[in-house]
Amino acid sequence: MQKGLKKVISDKRMNHQQIFKNIVNKRSFLCIGLDSEIDKLPATVLKKKDPVLEFNKAIIDATSKYTVAYKPNVAFYESNGPEGWNTLRETVNYIKVNYPDILVIADAKRGDIGNTSRLYARAFLEKMNCDAVTVAPYMGEDSVTPFLSVEGKWVVLLALTSNKGADDFQYHDEDGIKLFERVLTVSQKWGNMNNLMYVVGATRAEMLKNIRKIVPEHFLLIPGVGAQGGSLSAVARYGMTGKCGLLVNSSRGIIFADDSESFARTAALKAEEMQEEMAQYLAERNII
Amino acid sequence: MQKGLKKVISDKRMNHQQIFKNIVNKRSFLCIGLDSEIDKLPATVLKKKDPVLEFNKAIIDATSKYTVAYKPNVAFYESNGPEGWNTLRETVNYIKVNYPDILVIADAKRGDIGNTSRLYARAFLEKMNCDAVTVAPYMGEDSVTPFLSVEGKWVVLLALTSNKGADDFQYHDEDGIKLFERVLTVSQKWGNMNNLMYVVGATRAEMLKNIRKIVPEHFLLIPGVGAQGGSLSAVARYGMTGKCGLLVNSSRGIIFADDSESFARTAALKAEEMQEEMAQYLAERNII
Repeated sequence: MQKGLKKVISDKRMNHQQIFKNIVNKRSFLCIGLDSEIDKLPATVLKKKDPVLEFNKAIIDATSKYTVAYKPNVAFYESNGPEGWNTLRETVNYIKVNYPDILVIADAKRGDIGNTSRLYARAFLEKMNCDAVTVAPYMGEDSVTPFLSVEGKWVVLLALTSNKGADDFQYHDEDGIKLFERVLTVSQKWGNMNNLMYVVGATRAEMLKNIRKIVPEHFLLIPGVGAQGGSLSAVARYGMTGKCGLLVNSSRGIIFADDSESFARTAALKAEEMQEEMAQYLAERNII
Repeated sequence: MQKGLKKVISDKRMNHQQIFKNIVNKRSFLCIGLDSEIDKLPATVLKKKDPVLEFNKAIIDATSKYTVAYKPNVAFYESNGPEGWNTLRETVNYIKVNYPDILVIADAKRGDIGNTSRLYARAFLEKMNCDAVTVAPYMGEDSVTPFLSVEGKWVVLLALTSNKGADDFQYHDEDGIKLFERVLTVSQKWGNMNNLMYVVGATRAEMLKNIRKIVPEHFLLIPGVGAQGGSLSAVARYGMTGKCGLLVNSSRGIIFADDSESFARTAALKAEEMQEEMAQYLAERNII
C-alpha cells in the first residue's frame, strides 16, 4: 500500500432494518463463527506468516455470499498473545473493507463496572470497529449500558447459553421467573431493537416459543446448531419473527469441515447447504 | 539482554498457606489494582515509549513492600489494542522477575463454553503467567473448571460485585437463596481452598457475615474500598478469618492519588497507610 494512503474502512452502521434487508438479499440468516483455533488449522496455511489470518481470509472469501455475519470468538485470538490481537484486528478490517454489509460480532463475553466496560466498548466497537460485542449480564445495568451507548453498534447479551453449565445458574427461579427470563425482561429497558440482541442457545430450541413472548422482535443470536446438537428447523419454527429476527451461528461445522487443501471450498459448500435450508424457512414464512 | 539468554521468570505457584505467609510477613492483605488508564497517567511518564509500562514499574517498585497482590484490570490494557497486551505481559513479567512472592491477578472477568474457556485459561494463566484470573459465573460449571484445572493457579469467581448493577440479577432469589449465594455454594464443588477465591464487594461489607457462613475459609477478594465507598474496618470485622482470608483491593485511591512527578512516592504513602491499618486488624485477630 502506498505510504500515506489510508485503507478505506467502511464505517457503515447497521440497524435492525438493514440487517433484515441483508437477510432477504442473501436468503440467509447465517452467522459464521471464526473460532480459528491455531491447532486445528489445515497444514496448508501453517507455512504462512500469520496462519490464522490467511485461514480467515480464505474462509471469508469463500463463504461471504452465504452469510450475513461473522463472529470471531476473541478467546481464539487472545490465546495467541499480542500477535493474536493483531490477527483479530486484521480479520475485522478485511471483512469491513471487502464485505461492508456483513455484520462483525466480537464474541468477547465482556462485562465489568461502568468505567471499565466503557474501555471494553471502546476496544471492540471503536478501535477494532466491530459492529457488535457479546456481553455477560451478571454485573447488571452499568456493566452493559456503556456498550449500548456507542451509536449504531450492538450488544449481544447472554441470556440462555448452549453449554451444559447453563443449568447451574440461568434457571435460578424467583416466583416462576427464571434468571435468563429476568435478563431478557430487565435489559430491554436499557436498549432497543436497534442496539440489543440476545444469545439463546439452540440446544433448547423449544424454549424459543416462550422466549418470543418476552422478546417478540429483537434479534436472537443462536449458537449450538450443528456440532453442539441444535436443530435449525426447530430454531426457525419456534424463533423466527415476521422480520426473521434470527442469526444462527455455525463455527466448527463450517470452518473445520475439511482440513485438506480444499478447506475453503468445503467451507463454502457447508455454508451454502445451511443457506439453502435457511432460504426454505424464510420462504415458508413469506419473508422471501 | 544477551541474545539466547532467557529472562528468568519465577514459576512459583502459591497455595492458600503461602499467601497467608506473605500476609503475615508483610502485615498486609492489600491488593493494588493496576487500572492504569492511559488518560489518567501523570504527564511525566507520557514522554516514555510505553507510558503505561513505565507508570506500572514505578508504582510497583514504590508499593511492593506494602502489598501481597497486584490486580491489573485487563480492560485498561486491551483498550490500547495489541500494544496494550504487550504492556500487560511486560507488567506481569516485571512483577514475576522482581517480586516473585506477589500474587498477580488478571482481572479479566472471562467465561465461555468449555473449549473456549480453556483458551482463556491458557492465555492468562500459562502464556501470561498470571497466578489468578477473575471469572464470571453466568455460564456455569464448564465455563469455570477449565481455569481451575491449571495446576497451582487460581480462579477468582464473581459472586457479589461492588457496582450498582449488582442489584439487577445477583439478588434473584429462589426459595430464600439469592443468586450470588447459589454461586458461592455450587462453585465450591468445582474447586477448593487452594484454587478458588471469590469477589465480594466492600460496599456491602455487613453482608460478609452471612457470606462467611457459606464460605468460611476461602479467600475473598474485596473491591470497592476507598473510591467506591467501602470501609476497610467493616470488611475486616465481618470478613476476616483466623488465616485472614481477605485480599482487599484499592486501585485509583493508590495509583492515581497524585498526578505530579512524585506520583510513585504518593502511591507508596497511600499503600503504607492502608498496610498500617490492615496490620492493626491483623493484630486484633492475633494473626500477627
